[in-house]
Amino acid sequence: MSHASSSLDALFHPRSVALVGASSDPERIGGRPLRFMLEAGFAAPIYPVNRSGALIQGLQSYQKVSDIPFPVDQAIICVPVAGVEEAVRDAIAKGVKAIQVMTAGFAEIDAAGRALQDRIVGLCRAAGVRMLGPNSLGLLNVPARFFSTFSTFLNGAQPQPGSISLATQSGAFGSAAYGLATLRGLGFSKIIATGNEADVDVAESIDYLADDPDTRIICAAVESCRDGNRLRRALLKAARAGKPVLIMKVGRTELGAAAASTHTGSLAGNDKVYDTVFRECGALRPESIEEMLDIAYLYTVSGVLPANDELGVFTGSGGIGVLMADEAGAQGMELPPLPATAREATLALLPFAVAANPLDMTAQVTSVASGTSRTLGVMLEHTRYGAVLGYLAHVGLSPERFASTQQEIAELAAQHRERLTILVMLALPQVRSALEKQGVAVFEDPTRAVRAVAGLAKIRQRWQALYQLPGSAQPAAPALALDDVHTESGAKRALAAAGLPVPPEHLCSSAAQAAAAAAQVGFPVVAKIVSPDIAHKTEVGGVMLNLQDATAVDRAFGTLMDRARTARPDARLEGVLIAPMLRGGVEVILGLHRDPTFGQMVMYGSGGTAVELFQDVALASAPLTAARAQALVDAVRSSQLLRGWRGGPQYDEAALVQALCRLSEFAMQHADRVQSVDINPLMVRTQGAMCLDAVIELRAQTQQEAQP
Amino acid sequence: MSHASSSLDALFHPRSVALVGASSDPERIGGRPLRFMLEAGFAAPIYPVNRSGALIQGLQSYQKVSDIPFPVDQAIICVPVAGVEEAVRDAIAKGVKAIQVMTAGFAEIDAAGRALQDRIVGLCRAAGVRMLGPNSLGLLNVPARFFSTFSTFLNGAQPQPGSISLATQSGAFGSAAYGLATLRGLGFSKIIATGNEADVDVAESIDYLADDPDTRIICAAVESCRDGNRLRRALLKAARAGKPVLIMKVGRTELGAAAASTHTGSLAGNDKVYDTVFRECGALRPESIEEMLDIAYLYTVSGVLPANDELGVFTGSGGIGVLMADEAGAQGMELPPLPATAREATLALLPFAVAANPLDMTAQVTSVASGTSRTLGVMLEHTRYGAVLGYLAHVGLSPERFASTQQEIAELAAQHRERLTILVMLALPQVRSALEKQGVAVFEDPTRAVRAVAGLAKIRQRWQALYQLPGSAQPAAPALALDDVHTESGAKRALAAAGLPVPPEHLCSSAAQAAAAAAQVGFPVVAKIVSPDIAHKTEVGGVMLNLQDATAVDRAFGTLMDRARTARPDARLEGVLIAPMLRGGVEVILGLHRDPTFGQMVMYGSGGTAVELFQDVALASAPLTAARAQALVDAVRSSQLLRGWRGGPQYDEAALVQALCRLSEFAMQHADRVQSVDINPLMVRTQGAMCLDAVIELRAQTQQEAQP
Repeated sequence: MSHASSSLDALFHPRSVALVGASSDPERIGGRPLRFMLEAGFAAPIYPVNRSGALIQGLQSYQKVSDIPFPVDQAIICVPVAGVEEAVRDAIAKGVKAIQVMTAGFAEIDAAGRALQDRIVGLCRAAGVRMLGPNSLGLLNVPARFFSTFSTFLNGAQPQPGSISLATQSGAFGSAAYGLATLRGLGFSKIIATGNEADVDVAESIDYLADDPDTRIICAAVESCRDGNRLRRALLKAARAGKPVLIMKVGRTELGAAAASTHTGSLAGNDKVYDTVFRECGALRPESIEEMLDIAYLYTVSGVLPANDELGVFTGSGGIGVLMADEAGAQGMELPPLPATAREATLALLPFAVAANPLDMTAQVTSVASGTSRTLGVMLEHTRYGAVLGYLAHVGLSPERFASTQQEIAELAAQHRERLTILVMLALPQVRSALEKQGVAVFEDPTRAVRAVAGLAKIRQRWQALYQLPGSAQPAAPALALDDVHTESGAKRALAAAGLPVPPEHLCSSAAQAAAAAAQVGFPVVAKIVSPDIAHKTEVGGVMLNLQDATAVDRAFGTLMDRARTARPDARLEGVLIAPMLRGGVEVILGLHRDPTFGQMVMYGSGGTAVELFQDVALASAPLTAARAQALVDAVRSSQLLRGWRGGPQYDEAALVQALCRLSEFAMQHADRVQSVDINPLMVRTQGAMCLDAVIELRAQTQQEAQP
Repeated sequence: MSHASSSLDALFHPRSVALVGASSDPERIGGRPLRFMLEAGFAAPIYPVNRSGALIQGLQSYQKVSDIPFPVDQAIICVPVAGVEEAVRDAIAKGVKAIQVMTAGFAEIDAAGRALQDRIVGLCRAAGVRMLGPNSLGLLNVPARFFSTFSTFLNGAQPQPGSISLATQSGAFGSAAYGLATLRGLGFSKIIATGNEADVDVAESIDYLADDPDTRIICAAVESCRDGNRLRRALLKAARAGKPVLIMKVGRTELGAAAASTHTGSLAGNDKVYDTVFRECGALRPESIEEMLDIAYLYTVSGVLPANDELGVFTGSGGIGVLMADEAGAQGMELPPLPATAREATLALLPFAVAANPLDMTAQVTSVASGTSRTLGVMLEHTRYGAVLGYLAHVGLSPERFASTQQEIAELAAQHRERLTILVMLALPQVRSALEKQGVAVFEDPTRAVRAVAGLAKIRQRWQALYQLPGSAQPAAPALALDDVHTESGAKRALAAAGLPVPPEHLCSSAAQAAAAAAQVGFPVVAKIVSPDIAHKTEVGGVMLNLQDATAVDRAFGTLMDRARTARPDARLEGVLIAPMLRGGVEVILGLHRDPTFGQMVMYGSGGTAVELFQDVALASAPLTAARAQALVDAVRSSQLLRGWRGGPQYDEAALVQALCRLSEFAMQHADRVQSVDINPLMVRTQGAMCLDAVIELRAQTQQEAQP
């Protein structure tokens, strides 16, 4: 092991293993891991454990782990569920540092299974032993030939060493990804299936792999996540280590989420929150296993992320160039025009070419010596495109004819290792593999090639703006009191104390007070009923707009109180809020929500119906920096309404950004008490912004604590 | 030929061919078609034409087509561009019925090329000869072994016969699709590359293939389309013949469209119009070549479209089931719960299973004899799911172990040929091919399997609601006059005459008239300036709202006339329009647009900013039926605002649908004169709807004709 030591080393790099439940039958669950490791030549001692004590696949077996007369680093347990607890106790007694429990039948089945799982993980924790599983398909350390799995996928194809590592909760997902990857010749460093995650989870595995010198890119899949900040830290660590993380979250759509709840019994997290957290922490969420492998393949071959979002495309025929340009546009990539020097160089070389981007060499390119490779040379030398893609049809099927071009392309790519050089063509395996060794990736489908580049480009974008997890230190200022936030009036006071802009307004307990308050804030005014028992004021007719004079306000007070008493006879009425009637801004929504996994999330959306009709909202983890708050505003389409829409004015976006930052600070100061905040609307004006209404919901338990 | 005769038969099924420009070198453009046909065993006579008159690849050659002493059905021309016209004249003189021009250098290059192209197509038309190309990569009739192409793709892989046909404008696109298809073992019936489409285009090719008994599914690609109705008719014909059409349109995004204009010089059509026309005519637009081939593969294996949008999924492990459910949701498919009888049957068979949909057989399924195939049996017999997908990991890599299950699955699939039975697994080629022969499709990637089913399901949906092209008969009613539609007032009169609801309003030429008109329509009123020279009234302050009494109207008349005179001293002012001020409805936009390719298109969108911010609009080809107008309304998200949104009222959707139908009738009656109509807004009220503003733009030439 060349990297810093970790308590997971004994799982990934055991110096000796005991296989509890080992079987002589190489096709049985207890027989397979032994067979795989013996066939592959795992170098450390393997001690089969079996009641018979006989020879197992040629190795001396023992009746218990504690009978083994040598040191044992790790115990792999695949006995039936009834025997697991005893096996765990015995392994701990022997002094193992890590245990894998492959056996199923624990928390994923029923309450008794959960209790048993809690017991065995408790035993491990007490003894300082790390545990993988239960219900884990196992773990592979490919360079070490440590193939601790009963997956029959290894029957078909022994894993090849490579720089991709895979951390997955679901063994089936891991098997599927492994199978597809191996079929296309991708190699692995480590593969871990965390199963029920009683101890080791996908987040900790990613954290470990971020340190693993044999891992350059991490593929991962989660179904649920119990510690959002652990996952955040692991993703950020991988990003800072320069290792892309491609992470799938299953249970994406409503259909998928329903399936997840029958399957795992664990609450599927809010999908949009996962999207947000992955993006903020520099990870990419592929849409399919195949897309994940395409991106991993491209990165393992090229070794770099594209330096920008610009693609250069050259083809032997226009149609496919347009197809690739189409997909680039759909993926948010750019095809900037060829610079003048590149155009001149192209036409000097290929006078018949369409010297644009895509660059169409036309079929006549075959009449020019080294026409194709020299075109690539022009693209690499005269442009700054982060990635250059050439569509070469099927030349890779004729190795002799392609040989010199292939060599020239490989040399060019080697001189420009900071760029991505990609060929889209049909090719024989030896052609493909020779190109890959020189850093040239080969794709068969043009659309998939473009999508893979776009995936890596998104990772680069995200690495440039990583989220910063707040330190564990408490905020310097004492937490503000949140005693009385159950009404609009109280909520606004709390937000005003946190620095959010709130209009001058008065809670009035009589008509006369109301009329006086109105005169003070200035006509016209708004009058609203205030009661901790009436959350939706408009439903009881509890809001009156545009009151022009004292008489109207006087009348409104009585009307509002009467309406409230009639509609909700039991409601506690605190009075009527008098506020100035503001016009002429753009209404937006600011929100906070305490996600059970990831904590305080800030929400920003347009006002009106767009939030609901078009999901025109964006999320960000608190705390926000000003730059991240601005990015949140930019992510919402309706923000165009703030920016001289249809000849209208520029509204005060700086005030909006500041309000978002203040709200996020409020979230951090009250992280444990606040369940949600809705500021709906915040009116953004040409100068400043104003919270016109606000609701704060406290968390259930702390709410009880706060009550006398 | 077993189908009705067509003038394209001589292209696809020649009884003899002359190859003009034939070369002895089998690697040259003029040598390849000859070699391909000789190698493949094309049965009809081939006459090489070459100035030498020598033996060419073993065949007697002739100096001119007209020297050939036998009948010649088709001439294939691949001489340099300078010799093409002479070759065409000679072939016509010989009496050929069809000519392929493979040579490039015509309209795609410059004006001289276009002139030459026009000349040769003129010669062909005059002689009743059909022409493919110029700049065509050629044509393949695979069952007949007629391989008339110089594409080197055929060097690598000879085409296998199959039921897919391919019609493409771009030869490169055709080659790429052909190459990828052949690599995965798909077979073809016909392949045609139409190149510059001087005569035969993709639309006519689709029309021909719709009749071809050897074609069951048509793949197509267009870059531009010169006759929209020909394409519509061809797509509709294929749909009515029960042949799915998978059609790609390159130049999709703005990036792509820019590339198309450098490439072809032809105007890229409006992408959203293509989307609409494809959908209306029952075709599907895949996102990539790979997706096109996935869908074609699934259809050639299964032979049917899924009868509904319901998927049943069974797996050996939950994670992949959730992944597939996710993708199904994203694709608009459903995973309805297992019916009770299916649940009981599943649990009787596999007591440990999660008897839901996805159905998780769990790893224990291997302990039950025929567990997997019997689970499929339960799904097929106890449910109505149009497609059943089983994820079987990698069993297909172990043919012996999988043999009995494979046989049982094939038998079940054969008993349920009306359903789609799909396995997602890794499999050896012989396993895959045996299953495919029995109607079971095999995919490696779970996401792609779901997308392919969803693609076929969309085609079924579209076939159920095909667009009906209007007959060529003129409308019974005489076309209404469109003399004076250059103002709001005139446009509304024309629309009112077509049956659209227009408020009672009066064009007034004096303040007194205006005040009287206001009294007649009822206060409050709106007053608007009327001038054929002022299209955007609000820009000159030409609209005054909410006028409450005669005095206000009187003043407004003068104000509006003054403002207009000041802002546009040269404008012809017709007066002021007085209309009732309507409130309390939902504002939507109705539009017409005469697309240069596809003719009159109806547009529907929400009012307000959603059209621009969210592209919340939908298009339909005129004429509309009531059902298609309703579908247009349903396709716009903001239509939810009409349907009791947030406890609000139900607005009169029937009146909206009727207005759309009237507008579409107006479009058909004035198809040649109207360039566009904007009704913005139409106010949809709780009873009825009303056009509050309208602009009609006539086509430039007819506008000139209409002027004295």
